Amino acid sequence: MIIGRVIGEIHGTIKHRFYEGKRLLVVEKDNGDYIIAADSVGAGADEQVLVLDEGNGARQVFDSADAPVRSVVVGIIDAVSSRA
Amino acid sequence: MIIGRVIGEIHGTIKHRFYEGKRLLVVEKDNGDYIIAADSVGAGADEQVLVLDEGNGARQVFDSADAPVRSVVVGIIDAVSSRA
Amino acid sequence: MIIGRVIGEIHGTIKHRFYEGKRLLVVEKDNGDYIIAADSVGAGADEQVLVLDEGNGARQVFDSADAPVRSVVVGIIDAVSSRA
Amino acid sequence: MIIGRVIGEIHGTIKHRFYEGKRLLVVEKDNGDYIIAADSVGAGADEQVLVLDEGNGARQVFDSADAPVRSVVVGIIDAVSSRA
Amino acid sequence: MIIGRVIGEIHGTIKHRFYEGKRLLVVEKDNGDYIIAADSVGAGADEQVLVLDEGNGARQVFDSADAPVRSVVVGIIDAVSSRA
Repeated sequence: MIIGRVIGEIHGTIKHRFYEGKRLLVVEKDNGDYIIAADSVGAGADEQVLVLDEGNGARQVFDSADAPVRSVVVGIIDAVSSRA
Repeated sequence: MIIGRVIGEIHGTIKHRFYEGKRLLVVEKDNGDYIIAADSVGAGADEQVLVLDEGNGARQVFDSADAPVRSVVVGIIDAVSSRA
Repeated sequence: MIIGRVIGEIHGTIKHRFYEGKRLLVVEKDNGDYIIAADSVGAGADEQVLVLDEGNGARQVFDSADAPVRSVVVGIIDAVSSRA
Repeated sequence: MIIGRVIGEIHGTIKHRFYEGKRLLVVEKDNGDYIIAADSVGAGADEQVLVLDEGNGARQVFDSADAPVRSVVVGIIDAVSSRA
Repeated sequence: MIIGRVIGEIHGTIKHRFYEGKRLLVVEKDNGDYIIAADSVGAGADEQVLVLDEGNGARQVFDSADAPVRSVVVGIIDAVSSRA
């Protein structure tokens, strides 16, 4: 899984009914790359989040067997402790 | 998922019947890499698009259980707001 | 699979019940990238670990058919011999 | 999916029966990386090809439910138009 | 699929019974990255090998429906011809 920060949201015309009413967040990783992930937790701007980037798991988060989705924000991170 | 811009289209001989009549778009990401994705939304040149890069989801977009496809353009992006 | 070193742990609000009581470790790879992986072995700080980064296998480690998980620490590494 | 150019072929001892009689091509991408892909179209040296890099789809190309394969050359590219 | 060279072997405590008696090889790619792969062919030090990096296919190599494995050495490479 990946951690990153919510830096934006995308708006557009997504064909599949799954995306109706879903928020699509732009999540930036520490290395500067970013990923687009469907929100499942109500994450907001600048929040640090946990992203699951895997299709079968993402579909289970949304309880949708046929959703065309791969990346989903599954949690909001409060802290990263420097030691496990 | 990935956002990118449509910069071209490829033409050739693809063996599998799934590809008959499908458009294969060259989608460039911000970091300069690009990906080849089957079109499902009628995306055109220079449009910014959302790409799903996962086989099981891609097959569901095309309602084809056995399509040899992994990447599909699932939406056209109108705007990226800088804050979620 | 991937080897890396445990450099931290993340704390936050993960929506799915699967994550209740699970530790989420920050695992750094040699190239400086890191990955977030659910612990299944009791790995601690600075330990070198083996990470499986694949959803179906990760779900089987936790015996959970619907867990939204992709990356899991499956072992603690004692030594890397320079020759196989 | 990925486009690349066929720059070689590998020869060796592959354990699984699936690989008997299959050609394994070295396909170089524009960024200098390369990938090893099983041929399904009779691609030859220097040809530009489309590679599907996903296991379930690759198995369907070969009509083999249990083939240990992930990457397969699925087409030969004649042209890349600069605009879609 | 990936080609690389066996540069080492890892030893440790892997929780899952699947790993009992399995060798875990460190395989270095040309670009300097490396991957950890379970051996299925008896590959030795310095040998050039073909690695399948996909969970479902890897499980089929080992005939184990629930093995937590993603990467497996499936062949030993004798030669890479510079032209297909």
